[in-house]
Amino acid sequence: MEKDSIIILSGGMDSVTLLHYKKDKIALAVSFDYGSNHNAREIECARRQCELLGIDHIVIPLDFMGKYFKSSLLEGADLIPTGRYDDENIKSTVVPFRNGIMLAVACGLAESRGLKHVMMANHGGDHAIYPDCRPEFVEAMSRAMQCGTYEGITLEAAFTNITKSDIARIGKEIGVDYAMTYSCYKGGERHCGKCATCVERKEAMAEAGIDDPTIYEED
Amino acid sequence: MEKDSIIILSGGMDSVTLLHYKKDKIALAVSFDYGSNHNAREIECARRQCELLGIDHIVIPLDFMGKYFKSSLLEGADLIPTGRYDDENIKSTVVPFRNGIMLAVACGLAESRGLKHVMMANHGGDHAIYPDCRPEFVEAMSRAMQCGTYEGITLEAAFTNITKSDIARIGKEIGVDYAMTYSCYKGGERHCGKCATCVERKEAMAEAGIDDPTIYEED
Repeated sequence: MEKDSIIILSGGMDSVTLLHYKKDKIALAVSFDYGSNHNAREIECARRQCELLGIDHIVIPLDFMGKYFKSSLLEGADLIPTGRYDDENIKSTVVPFRNGIMLAVACGLAESRGLKHVMMANHGGDHAIYPDCRPEFVEAMSRAMQCGTYEGITLEAAFTNITKSDIARIGKEIGVDYAMTYSCYKGGERHCGKCATCVERKEAMAEAGIDDPTIYEED
Repeated sequence: MEKDSIIILSGGMDSVTLLHYKKDKIALAVSFDYGSNHNAREIECARRQCELLGIDHIVIPLDFMGKYFKSSLLEGADLIPTGRYDDENIKSTVVPFRNGIMLAVACGLAESRGLKHVMMANHGGDHAIYPDCRPEFVEAMSRAMQCGTYEGITLEAAFTNITKSDIARIGKEIGVDYAMTYSCYKGGERHCGKCATCVERKEAMAEAGIDDPTIYEED
């Protein structure tokens, strides 16, 4: 199989699962440091997973986001709301057009390195809150990437229409070590267990029948 | 008229003309410093034009491009080819998916600030060489921006189907001072007069009947 793809790798459950799932097609993993509370811990997980698989990994800083963008995710752990993703207050954690920006940069990188595809691990559970995770965004962005490059680079978002629990089931099947992934929006040494990403992480592992290796603050 | 737009402003002839042409709609101008030979001089022109019109202006550094992207534009003045835009060697100056990246960042900024549109000054003469200036890219990217944001932000690329000479005619009509614009890809104190952007700049002003205020190195 040709290694002709770049993956956007946060270091969370979803993108780490995609990394393992498509490892034979991935030439480069790219993580973005946009200055969120949890970026450093996520990126350390991304680095270790790539090391494990022998896949090149680079980190691209997007410092301007912290300076100019509006999101509670960029403003300190105390402002991160607790609760589920379907609550209105979770909207404050959205970083405007984050996926659009990461995809555009990854697309330019792909064209620079002669690669053909960009992979992203958005999933069905993201659709309600995040407009830049929805199928219509994925389709339009793929078309923009294809039209805007010589090589006609395309976006492959394999998890767009499945849930995080489905992703965890795939991960269980292929043996992903979820202890080496990080989700919590508060960014502490331990996962808080209460923010929307922690709640979602716990539920997905429970539904997939995985013995959750995460140590939560509340335990 | 409502000031509900962000403009991507390089400081060259095209975007400076668009800035003046649409000034009553523009709340913020954003320049990107991606480390090219000519960025500093361009951005100084952008700053001065905004000062003249009383429009807010910010500069966003994209340092990763110089580090990871492949383009002669990012590699020193000696590598800039001379000749016209229709020559194959000019392809080496393309910065992969540059417009996609700048538009994605500007889109996120617009959503962060409650603005509705992003303006870009790509034009008909760019189509042959730059895939991310073509009408089909503009259309797909606008759709991606619209789908990927809560406010349905759109891209307005008013010059997509006209030429640089047409732009110069508009500039002449509304009194744009082209002495305060910078084009040369070599990035010297004076325009070289020989690189593709210089050749294009001279031709556009001549065709629009503008007395070219530029001092070229070759004169």
